[in-house]
Order: sequence, then C-alpha cells, then structure tokens
Amino acid sequence: MTQYLSKKAQSITPYVAGEQPGGKNNIKLNTNENPFPPSPKVIRAAKAAINAELRKYPDAGGGSFRKAAAEYVGVSEENIFCGNGSDEVLGFAFQAFFDPGKPVSTPDISYSFYPVWAALYDIPLKKIPLDENFALNPKDYTKSKGGVIIANPNAPTGVAITKAEVEIIVAGNKGKVVIIDEAYVEFGAESAVDLIKTYDNLLVVRTLSKSQSLAGMRAGFAVGSEALIDGMNRIKDSFNSYPVDRLTEATAAAALHDRAYYEKANGQVMETREWTTQALIRIGVTVLPSKANFIFARPNKLPAKTVFERLREKNIYVRWFNKPRIDAYLRISIGTKAEMRALVDAIDAMN
Amino acid sequence: MTQYLSKKAQSITPYVAGEQPGGKNNIKLNTNENPFPPSPKVIRAAKAAINAELRKYPDAGGGSFRKAAAEYVGVSEENIFCGNGSDEVLGFAFQAFFDPGKPVSTPDISYSFYPVWAALYDIPLKKIPLDENFALNPKDYTKSKGGVIIANPNAPTGVAITKAEVEIIVAGNKGKVVIIDEAYVEFGAESAVDLIKTYDNLLVVRTLSKSQSLAGMRAGFAVGSEALIDGMNRIKDSFNSYPVDRLTEATAAAALHDRAYYEKANGQVMETREWTTQALIRIGVTVLPSKANFIFARPNKLPAKTVFERLREKNIYVRWFNKPRIDAYLRISIGTKAEMRALVDAIDAMN
Repeated sequence: MTQYLSKKAQSITPYVAGEQPGGKNNIKLNTNENPFPPSPKVIRAAKAAINAELRKYPDAGGGSFRKAAAEYVGVSEENIFCGNGSDEVLGFAFQAFFDPGKPVSTPDISYSFYPVWAALYDIPLKKIPLDENFALNPKDYTKSKGGVIIANPNAPTGVAITKAEVEIIVAGNKGKVVIIDEAYVEFGAESAVDLIKTYDNLLVVRTLSKSQSLAGMRAGFAVGSEALIDGMNRIKDSFNSYPVDRLTEATAAAALHDRAYYEKANGQVMETREWTTQALIRIGVTVLPSKANFIFARPNKLPAKTVFERLREKNIYVRWFNKPRIDAYLRISIGTKAEMRALVDAIDAMN
Repeated sequence: MTQYLSKKAQSITPYVAGEQPGGKNNIKLNTNENPFPPSPKVIRAAKAAINAELRKYPDAGGGSFRKAAAEYVGVSEENIFCGNGSDEVLGFAFQAFFDPGKPVSTPDISYSFYPVWAALYDIPLKKIPLDENFALNPKDYTKSKGGVIIANPNAPTGVAITKAEVEIIVAGNKGKVVIIDEAYVEFGAESAVDLIKTYDNLLVVRTLSKSQSLAGMRAGFAVGSEALIDGMNRIKDSFNSYPVDRLTEATAAAALHDRAYYEKANGQVMETREWTTQALIRIGVTVLPSKANFIFARPNKLPAKTVFERLREKNIYVRWFNKPRIDAYLRISIGTKAEMRALVDAIDAMN
C-alpha cells in the first residue's frame, strides 16, 4: 500500500520518540519531562485565556509569547520567532538556512531528530566524531560548507560547551548559519543568546518543554538577527501561518514571566541530578558530567540493554539507544528525588 | 541580507492571510471566523484540562481528539490524522502524496495556499479553469498525472460540488491521491467522507476553525484509508512528533462531541448568509450561490477595490484579491446579523 506515498514519504525514516506508557504507577524517566508542574501563574493565565475569543485566529507571530521571550532573553521582538515546540522551530530552520548539496556540520552523536530533518529536506550532514569522552572540539566546526547545528548541552550525553567555545564556531562560519539548540540550557549550561547581538549568522533555539514544564503545550522559540527571523517567517508563512494557538501563547508568556518559580524548580532538578550522579557512581555506574535535566550513564556490571529491560519490568522507563558508540549507555531523565532513589535502588538490586 | 537564506527560502512567495486589525469597533468579515463563541462545553473541557499534566508531552496521535473525530465522521480511529490546523494537515499531505515532476490538478481559482505548498515542495500544479460561473466540471479532473486537490465548497467562491461529483473524480484517479479540502463543508455542502470506505485514494481534510468556532486553537484533521493515514504519520514524525497540544486535544474533542450546539450556531450563520445574499442582490450586488460561511460578491456600481477601501475606512474589513478573473469580487465572511446589516447599509450608501 505504499503506491500512494510520495518518493519522499517512502524514503524517510521517521523520528521515534520515547514511549508514553499508560498506567499510573510508572516512573517515567524516558522523555526528559520536568517533574515539577507549571507555575501557578501559568495555570491562572491559561484559565483566563479560555473565552469567546477562541473563535478568532491567534496572532500569527506569537503575540504576548513573542514579547515575553524577547524580554526573557534580553533582545527585541524582531529577534524572536515563536513555534509549535522547538521541533517545529528546528524543522523550519533546516528549510530556511540549509541547502541540498552543502553539508551541514554536526556531532556524530547528538539529537536523533537532526538526521531526520536532514533527510526530509535533502540536506547532507557532515558528522564529526566527538572524542572518547563525548566532548566536542569547536575548531572541528569552523569553515563549514553548509552551516552547523549543535545541541548545547548535547543530547543524549548532557555534556555542554562554553559560550566562548560557541563563539569560536560562530565566528569561524562567516556567511553560514550556526544553529545552537539550547533545549536543556537552563539546567546549568551557558547560553549563547547574547552573541546574536554581535553575529548575524547565529540562531539560538529554545523550548519551554523542559525548563518551563510545558511539554504538553508545544512552545519553542528561536533568537537571531532580523535577517534570520525573516527567513523563519518566510517558511512558516509557506506552511502554516498560525503555528501557535491562543492558549499556547498565554501559557508560554506567563511561564517566561515567572522566572523565580522555575529557577527554584530547576535548581531542585539540578540538585537531584547531582545526588543521582553520586549515588550511581557509588554503585559502580559511570555517569557523564551533565548540564541537562537527564544523565547519560553506563552500567558496568550488566549490559545497558539488560538494565533497560529489567527496569522496564519494574515500570521504570529510561531510554536506551541501539546505536554504535552509545549502546552501552542509558539516558535517564531527572525526576523527583523519590523516583531517582527508586531507580538507584532498582539498579543496585541487579548487581 | 538574503545571503543566509536557503535557495528555497529565497524563491518562495509566502501565503498572505487576511489582516487582523487592532481596535475594538471593527466589523471583521475578512478571515471567515465564526461569529459565535465555542460551545460552553468546550470552555469547561479546556478549563478541566489545565493542570499539572501540562508538564508531560501530549499523545502524539491526538488522543481524545482523534477518537472524537472518528466518531464525528463515522470512521475508525485508524482513518484519522490530527494536526495543528488544517493548514498543517494539508502541508503534510502535499509532502506525503505528491511528487516533484507530476502535475497535481486543481482549479485555477481556489484556496491561495495550494500554490504556496506546491512551490515549497517543488510540486507542479495543473490549473484547470473553472467556467464563467466559477463552476467545476468533475471530468476535467479524472486521469490526473500526479493527484488532485480541490476545496469543497471552493474558496473564495463558496460554490460547492455534490458527493456524486466528488466520486467521479475519486473513481477516475485510480492510483493517485485525491484531496478534498472540506474546510467549509458544514455550512450546507455535502461531505465526501463516506467515500473513504470505498476508495482508498481519497483524503478528506476538515478544520475546526470555522464550523466549531475554534480558529484560535488550531485544530484540523484528515480522514482516509489506513495507507494514507500512515503516509501522513510518516511526514509528521519526520517534522514534529507532537503537533497537537493537550489543550487543543481537549477543546477539539469537546467541540466534536457537542454537535447540537454547533448545528444551531451554523444554522444561524446559514440563515444570515441567505439574508445577506438577498439584501445585497436588492441593492444591485451580484452574489454567487454559497455553501460556505462567506459569500463572493460583485459590486456592480463601483469597482470591488473601491468598495473594499471605502468599507475599510468605516472599519468594515472584507477581503479583496488582486488577481485575474476575481478582482471584481469581494469575499465577505458571514458575521452576526447586525454586522451584516451594517455592511449592506454601508455598501448601499456608496451607490
């Protein structure tokens, strides 16, 4: 029954997200969701936005969400593009800035959606190997043929680079667009957003799914020069002029206004991450240094796949990638302290 | 500053939506929004869905929205694809079923987003002229090279074809996908949804923006054979795995469950449409027979552009397309009876 599919639809290999198990007693540490609920101010703002105005189209540019994002990162509204999750924002960016035939530089191990967008838009990737500690050398990414895309902190490793290292890459790619995907940056890494004032070829992409506890609302944004934001809008207006609905706009704006609530919540996530890291190391698990709301951990006594499966039997869900170089690791989202204690105990009991 | 844009981003001409004027005293008849608010049950369902669960990703397939859509049109969930507005659904469908090099048949006058998606995905269009009354001959669309896309009722004319006419087109395109865009079907036209049980090459696309008063929530869906829905999912999962957020899911499901409320509201829209049509004809305006929530009207005493501009001066917004064959017409959304009376009076005063 593939007779009806376009050549493109037949040829692509779609992204596979972490499973969403049903049932109530699961410990779900497989999709990097925040264990804390959205801010009470977000809940109030969402309720206030539910009214007869829903009959009308939303603001095509994100309205109050765009304004709040600009204030949040300290730029003008003209430097902000809002979308239906950072996945949509990144998809648009691939179309807006990368060309077939010009290889885009990216680490060999990174967010597994990048190769999917590349295939969807016929953009070749130049996969540059990270070193044996999954660290990135910025000089490997200068003078790219078609641009650069990097996650910072990286996924699924959690390893971050500094703003100075990002600057080496951006400055070393005159005339090419460098995309820094900062999905996890608010869990302790250094943002490169400031650099957009100096470099018009830098696009920084953020999401509210993780650090603002809003995965259920699908809100993300890009920060860049007016030229880059114009490119994003050209693609949006050729695909779906209104990607951000009225309630997403209201919840996203309220979340970005309540910095204090999320700094506290994310502070606790980071504290729990450090506790989990130490506890796992004590029972013989290797853990990479993470600046994200997950850790990348190598169980040394049993294969990662076995640990993944045995945890699953106990309704503890983590992520295991059946891929070269990383199949000895598990990606474990940071949940509540109680959830992480249950995880550590479950792994300890296998030894 | 186009140096950073991909060849694609430089070459496309984006869609231009109707303007969204600020201010409170406007009569806004330019984007085909429903004059009635969403059902009270929708408001309640939305409020109930605002809770701590927003921290978690939504169901990737639309969850309760998908289930409600299946019940609403009388098919299985496997025959439904949910998206972020019917624009996104249509964009995915272009990618999933149409190929570069194979012309897709479509009327010369139709939804002006079709040529934009065609350009975005390098799909050639075979534009088939409607007759002098903007009527479509189904036989013109059989044996297409690359598939068919038709809006029924058509936009911006409001003219509809019957289910039997749709069947001629679908039966006459074995092995090619026929997309029927039923954005406005619930204002009096005949849906072709039933035909998906007989023809696996038919995709029917619907939106909740107009007939469910939910333009602000961005909810649309497609109905088709499992093979076609699989194609849609392949594209979605290569672009943005979670296009429908939790509150869109909740509001869309509640809207589709409250059939009685919307039948009454849309009945009033149709009644107002007939009143407006007769009132305009009485003052010398030609009005096409419409099965949509807008009318396509030709002022005979002044040029359409002049009427458009003078209405605008009075804060009455309608749509005028500066395009061959239709530049003598105005597309006028059906608002409340009071709004339509103000419109008719304003045009009458110009004569």
